[in-house]
Amino acid sequence: MRLYDYPGAPNPRRVRIFMAEKGVEIETIRVDLAVKEQFSPAYRAINARCLVPTLVLDDGTAIDESVAICRYLEEVFPEPPLMGVDARDKALVEMWQRRMELDGLAAAAEALRNSAKGLQGRALVGPHGYEQIPALVARGKARLVDFYADLDARLAESAYVAGDRFTIADITAFVTIEFATSRMKLGFAPALRAIARWRAMVEARPSMRIQSAI
Amino acid sequence: MRLYDYPGAPNPRRVRIFMAEKGVEIETIRVDLAVKEQFSPAYRAINARCLVPTLVLDDGTAIDESVAICRYLEEVFPEPPLMGVDARDKALVEMWQRRMELDGLAAAAEALRNSAKGLQGRALVGPHGYEQIPALVARGKARLVDFYADLDARLAESAYVAGDRFTIADITAFVTIEFATSRMKLGFAPALRAIARWRAMVEARPSMRIQSAI
Repeated sequence: MRLYDYPGAPNPRRVRIFMAEKGVEIETIRVDLAVKEQFSPAYRAINARCLVPTLVLDDGTAIDESVAICRYLEEVFPEPPLMGVDARDKALVEMWQRRMELDGLAAAAEALRNSAKGLQGRALVGPHGYEQIPALVARGKARLVDFYADLDARLAESAYVAGDRFTIADITAFVTIEFATSRMKLGFAPALRAIARWRAMVEARPSMRIQSAI
Repeated sequence: MRLYDYPGAPNPRRVRIFMAEKGVEIETIRVDLAVKEQFSPAYRAINARCLVPTLVLDDGTAIDESVAICRYLEEVFPEPPLMGVDARDKALVEMWQRRMELDGLAAAAEALRNSAKGLQGRALVGPHGYEQIPALVARGKARLVDFYADLDARLAESAYVAGDRFTIADITAFVTIEFATSRMKLGFAPALRAIARWRAMVEARPSMRIQSAI
């Protein structure tokens, strides 16, 4: 199989961290988002939705959506488990992963994609162009503040986002914070001590140092 | 276990259809969204995120996010499988489920929640109030048109959304169409024959007639 990837973007990074945690190496092909290569005819033939990352299996099956790619890897390389170990745990990991993504990563993307000059006409990912809406910049920032407050409350009572174990929910939360901080200076407030405690612990994992294989 | 539910809303309906397909019956408690009961202190004690549905297990664990609730039910009641049968299939079902949700259901919700008078100050679900943004009504409608075109292309080449078998991706797609059509008259165009073929087939399933148990 092979992975279509781009360094620096948050969704590809989620998949790369997931792979590193499992010790999985996959042939990687760079799709240069900086020159809009994802809209090229060659890439559209691989993924008509123009999303990166995309995992292509040996039988030609193309899988996009980072969490769906992680699901495949979790099934094929089950150790260490990053998406839960029994029914209750799998449901809780999925719940927390979705909360991190919908409340956090989507908020950061909303603020960035509606303000960056290079993303005019591309306020949402995918093949259909949507214009930027200036009011969404402020909303994205407000959502991120709420997200940080909620995350801090959670981490004040739980070692990791989804419980006692590092999971995909931690990956999404960590990448969200990195993305919001580095791209928009929208980091969490120092008063949020529980996030700071958790972030230092997660940052020490070797997988977090991997920016890209390409 | 018990399910906190409300008839008429699309996310609770997704879970009810999923349960009906598996023949699962769960004690159901009504949370009256029409009078904002999800924001009551009693319900906040169950789910601080104020979301419906919420599944509460016998040990008191509360699970929100409809897909996470379905994940739990899939693990505990595996037959018939609605979230995939092997690594490749599970990944493809997750991919298609997410596409239906992010491209379809989220678009319909964007159009409705930014225009309905009863949802002023609540343009996004959850405990944090966000004001309506009028420009999102037109964007939500435009996204829904694109969603229908993409779904028609998919169903022209596949019996069901995620392949040869009925899955959670069909449930999300069907509920999205019902929601957009009944609440906003934003149904798909008659020219989209592949959707019409699929919709007639899915609508005939007994699970689709279940509006609510309460």
